[in-house]
Amino acid sequence: MRAAILRNGQMVVDEVAEPTPGPGQVLLETLACGICGSDLHCARHARSFTEAAKASGMTLFAFDPDQDLVMGHEFSARVLEYGPVIDGSAANPLAPGTAVVAHPMVRDGNRPCSVGYHNRFPGAYAQRVVVDAGGVLAIPDGTDPVHAALTEPLAVGLHAVNASSAVAAGSAIVLGCGPVGLAVIAALRLQGVQRIVAADFSPIRRRFAEVMGAEVVVDPREQPAVDAWRGAGGRGPAVIFEAVGVPGMIANTMRSAPSRSELVVVGLCMEPDVIEPTIAISRQLTVKFVLGWNAEEFAASLDGIASGRIDVAPLVTGRVDVDGAPGAFDTLAQPEQHVKIVVQPNGPAA
Amino acid sequence: MRAAILRNGQMVVDEVAEPTPGPGQVLLETLACGICGSDLHCARHARSFTEAAKASGMTLFAFDPDQDLVMGHEFSARVLEYGPVIDGSAANPLAPGTAVVAHPMVRDGNRPCSVGYHNRFPGAYAQRVVVDAGGVLAIPDGTDPVHAALTEPLAVGLHAVNASSAVAAGSAIVLGCGPVGLAVIAALRLQGVQRIVAADFSPIRRRFAEVMGAEVVVDPREQPAVDAWRGAGGRGPAVIFEAVGVPGMIANTMRSAPSRSELVVVGLCMEPDVIEPTIAISRQLTVKFVLGWNAEEFAASLDGIASGRIDVAPLVTGRVDVDGAPGAFDTLAQPEQHVKIVVQPNGPAA
Repeated sequence: MRAAILRNGQMVVDEVAEPTPGPGQVLLETLACGICGSDLHCARHARSFTEAAKASGMTLFAFDPDQDLVMGHEFSARVLEYGPVIDGSAANPLAPGTAVVAHPMVRDGNRPCSVGYHNRFPGAYAQRVVVDAGGVLAIPDGTDPVHAALTEPLAVGLHAVNASSAVAAGSAIVLGCGPVGLAVIAALRLQGVQRIVAADFSPIRRRFAEVMGAEVVVDPREQPAVDAWRGAGGRGPAVIFEAVGVPGMIANTMRSAPSRSELVVVGLCMEPDVIEPTIAISRQLTVKFVLGWNAEEFAASLDGIASGRIDVAPLVTGRVDVDGAPGAFDTLAQPEQHVKIVVQPNGPAA
Repeated sequence: MRAAILRNGQMVVDEVAEPTPGPGQVLLETLACGICGSDLHCARHARSFTEAAKASGMTLFAFDPDQDLVMGHEFSARVLEYGPVIDGSAANPLAPGTAVVAHPMVRDGNRPCSVGYHNRFPGAYAQRVVVDAGGVLAIPDGTDPVHAALTEPLAVGLHAVNASSAVAAGSAIVLGCGPVGLAVIAALRLQGVQRIVAADFSPIRRRFAEVMGAEVVVDPREQPAVDAWRGAGGRGPAVIFEAVGVPGMIANTMRSAPSRSELVVVGLCMEPDVIEPTIAISRQLTVKFVLGWNAEEFAASLDGIASGRIDVAPLVTGRVDVDGAPGAFDTLAQPEQHVKIVVQPNGPAA
């Protein structure tokens, strides 16, 4: 089958071996797979990416950077065939042909692994993908599978919001309006938070933040986000999502945070970072580092998309087939124009 | 009056002007004043101390390091005389002669300041001290004023515990058994937490941790605190108090923390510090930076001491008069033998 492959630091398109579903697994035909910021980072820095992950105990992301890697973990697909049913587990409820999304998880023996970061299990930048059957959810009728492919990144935003005090506070500040920040904004709206102040240097990203439901959107060079939040009626401690993920952002955010604020770090900075404990202590800040999602959040994210309560259509700013994937990676290295480019390895009509 | 003074980077004893209580203030005769780690730090690095504080927005600690500074904010005292009553405020209930503790706060005009970090209001390393009258509490009969002087540092520990999830978790790890760590241990016991694992390099400090009620005490070179906590039955996320306050400790603690643990940073690291966000994110850690106490915690701390529920007697490892204060600062630069040295500016019989 054809796949976009990270090989020797380059994205190339080539044939790879067909995956076979093992016990408790299912083979899916890929419909659409979003390109994630982590994939962009991994394409440029595969070795440091996996080594930092391993050093942090994230064995989910342990792969050999010197071997071929087929990434892709934000996807929708169609059920093809199941591997052997594991004794005692539930029957597989979804008939072949059913359109689904799936937790991007696959067991390698007993080791849980992340689909898209494993050398022997291709991710969804390939025509077919194997996942654990337990994490597969049918896409409700009438939902565009391209939109359903955003279930996973939106679940990341929902997890961050659920880990925060934003619902209780009734307001939030979102720093960075890339895919992660936009997912946080969408999740805040889904959870009923109306007073959302978002900040990004990019005018295009600020426009997307408005579209996703931010009440106030600022260029932080013109107005600090905390000032804008106060201008919109924010008082006392703030709930601030740091969705930029570059060195220095945590310290910057601490410096601007009102006393007793909560910082939710959802942007993944892969490098060591400097903070100023005196500032954090004097402000009595709480910093919550969050990652991923749970099964309920994944399902709620799909439901939010399918019900139309989250309109993800504006976020899909590009569609390519598998041959277009390497070019899309290049395009996203300058992400100004794009939020999410979706790869359709079996073509748009799949 | 006589006072121990920080002058040109040296602790000296000299005469200073008598303070006069302004409106809403009270003049106290100092009975005992504990030497705080912050004072030791300030004595060595006054300029960077106040500049870091000011840069952090801690205007409470804004003073001129080129002028004389009389420190001392952990004290007990006796009421001498009140300044003018402010219109509309409550009458002053405590008769002259009453033994008291007091919030170390004093208004300079409208600016709230910390007693002991203000050039014109001497702290309690002097024979007399002026504070805001609203923060004065009578010491219950029968309580040694030297013990009552530990109200403030124990309140710091109580505030850290109250800000944490330790009571809900029923267990805690305390890294560092200096005065702050020991105050945390005492507060954990006061709040009913039994499973307390404490760690310190110093055998003497480990002994103090046992005396204050830690269930398990380890040398972290021999056994990591988290391992000891697991050995004592700890499961799942941990509540970890970082009471060392030197660069690298936050990162070290993150590296050893179980997934979804809560780090409570109560040790004040005055320098920029490096963390590894990937570790914090992969573990989904929460970091709470805490400082100070509130009025309820200050009162509860005094009550804990007066009722005997916290036995602070072992913590008072030295007593000096005002002439002995500079030597005590030197002694505490090598803190192995001591927890708290108490200065009695009016002598032990005051």
